[in-house]
Amino acid sequence: MLAAMGEFDLIARYFTRPVARAALGVGDDCALLLPAPGMQLAVSSDMLVEGRHFFADVDPFALGHKALAVNLSDLAACGARPLAFTLALALPQADEAWLQGFSGGLLALADAHGCELVGGDTTCGPLNICITVFGEVPVVNGISQALLRSGARAGDDLYVSGTLGDARLALEALRGNIDLPPELLAQARMRLERPTPRVALGQALRGVASAALDLSDGLLGDLGHILAQSGVGATVNAFSAIELIAAFAHPAWGSGLVSLKNQLEFALAGGDDYELAFTAPVSARDAVQAAARQADTPVTRIGHIDAEAGLRLQGASGQPLSGEFASFDHFA
Amino acid sequence: MLAAMGEFDLIARYFTRPVARAALGVGDDCALLLPAPGMQLAVSSDMLVEGRHFFADVDPFALGHKALAVNLSDLAACGARPLAFTLALALPQADEAWLQGFSGGLLALADAHGCELVGGDTTCGPLNICITVFGEVPVVNGISQALLRSGARAGDDLYVSGTLGDARLALEALRGNIDLPPELLAQARMRLERPTPRVALGQALRGVASAALDLSDGLLGDLGHILAQSGVGATVNAFSAIELIAAFAHPAWGSGLVSLKNQLEFALAGGDDYELAFTAPVSARDAVQAAARQADTPVTRIGHIDAEAGLRLQGASGQPLSGEFASFDHFA
Repeated sequence: MLAAMGEFDLIARYFTRPVARAALGVGDDCALLLPAPGMQLAVSSDMLVEGRHFFADVDPFALGHKALAVNLSDLAACGARPLAFTLALALPQADEAWLQGFSGGLLALADAHGCELVGGDTTCGPLNICITVFGEVPVVNGISQALLRSGARAGDDLYVSGTLGDARLALEALRGNIDLPPELLAQARMRLERPTPRVALGQALRGVASAALDLSDGLLGDLGHILAQSGVGATVNAFSAIELIAAFAHPAWGSGLVSLKNQLEFALAGGDDYELAFTAPVSARDAVQAAARQADTPVTRIGHIDAEAGLRLQGASGQPLSGEFASFDHFA
Repeated sequence: MLAAMGEFDLIARYFTRPVARAALGVGDDCALLLPAPGMQLAVSSDMLVEGRHFFADVDPFALGHKALAVNLSDLAACGARPLAFTLALALPQADEAWLQGFSGGLLALADAHGCELVGGDTTCGPLNICITVFGEVPVVNGISQALLRSGARAGDDLYVSGTLGDARLALEALRGNIDLPPELLAQARMRLERPTPRVALGQALRGVASAALDLSDGLLGDLGHILAQSGVGATVNAFSAIELIAAFAHPAWGSGLVSLKNQLEFALAGGDDYELAFTAPVSARDAVQAAARQADTPVTRIGHIDAEAGLRLQGASGQPLSGEFASFDHFA
């Protein structure tokens, strides 16, 4: 129970919607879910903590958006269609303006993806947001169509969706480490605070991609999980990755506000991108582009999978990175 | 990531088990679950915060037990069989002794109920434990067998499982408000810190009970949710409830350490009981006792459901409670 408002009043006022698809939603001891016949349930939990995942003064609407977006991004990485989620929320006090903003951002994104809030918990404590999200993935002839981290094979192409490094650019500017013009900061900040989970792309890649994950900690570090779980290595063209930094950010590069080394760091190890990294056989190049068009989401080929373990970074013309840039492979 | 140990090391060391029943467990973007044919999935989330749900110096083994127990209790209240859970954990630092104790208590209870840890999240922040638990409930001829809060009918009997008020007795002693002999405190503290989720009873009551919930905030307050959602009232024999305070606590009553008013408060509004309160038609009295025997869990009839809204408290011989005891109905 919270001080100013009982737990149940709060749930009723800000978070209760009529039940759409779930058998039973908010208000009983459990929510009840029934996956459609032939469907498997994909489940993921993420916890967001103030000071670590967001600033204390973040716009609550943006925070509500991001809290669900990072979970939907996990579903996207599995190729799952979003169904429902639970929300557990610890709040220092029941601030109605904050709750209105937070629930507004959360439920707007939920509605956009047909993802129902079906249950949860509210309690008094340091601000903490824990969401568990549910999606469904088809099982065909007894085989799950989920995209896993373990399916990459030597020779596969390596792709990334959308853009990389913009969220980190915003973070460094907000930390005062980089001086950005206000309109550029505003654009970068949208990428940090309101990431776009690549839900449609994940589903379009079922049966096309051999492995996939979503990028939360940075491209090279996250890619390491695919390499470890697939028992393979990879070669990444670092300058292909740099070119994925959003076009709006280029004035900062051109002006010299951001060094080449920082550009590489933001693109390769920036974090908070919430793009998909995935692999696919060379024979599936047309199918990958068709999936990208179907999902209206750009994808870029940035390297390939090797039989040899480890990660190799290449420069623009295929040469190994050297000097101060060579150290980026320690992120993997 | 945590300071002393990477997130993935920590998950691997303390929380990873071979996957038993789930299609895919810890280590990918999502866990994959497939309920058995004819089964619906019951889902519940609970968040535990230091200072609010447990003391900072609580034994980590007990805390691991309780964090899962309160979630299993929600499944029990729905009549669901436990299947799996996710754990999201915010920790101020990676204290290996603490993690060993916590994961030990958590996984011991999980194993006792065949409930698999299938995913989650670890992060750095003020201690916060968020568990989402999954169970299955049969659907028969298109009708869910889940026990809901909304099924109580006028004339139904009202029952409570196990004992009431012992956890609150421990809490008041730990707060220094009541002076208990050490061996009595130790017993009461077990009820506070290691509650027993009534999982077998919940399943045995499917098709027998008309409504059920688990008692976390205190009998009268929680009973109010059944009354509101069923559109009914209830009469509760307060002295039947007092008699449910565990036998080990009676020396404290006899010695005068705990006033009659406090006894009533602990039993009726104590909180942290994690017993089931449920209703059943009078015609099901034998079936209720058979379910209790099958689950090896005592149940006690403490009142009945009325058509008239509101809650009425009776004394030992059926008279309305009066004087200083009459005010307990404000908890409902």
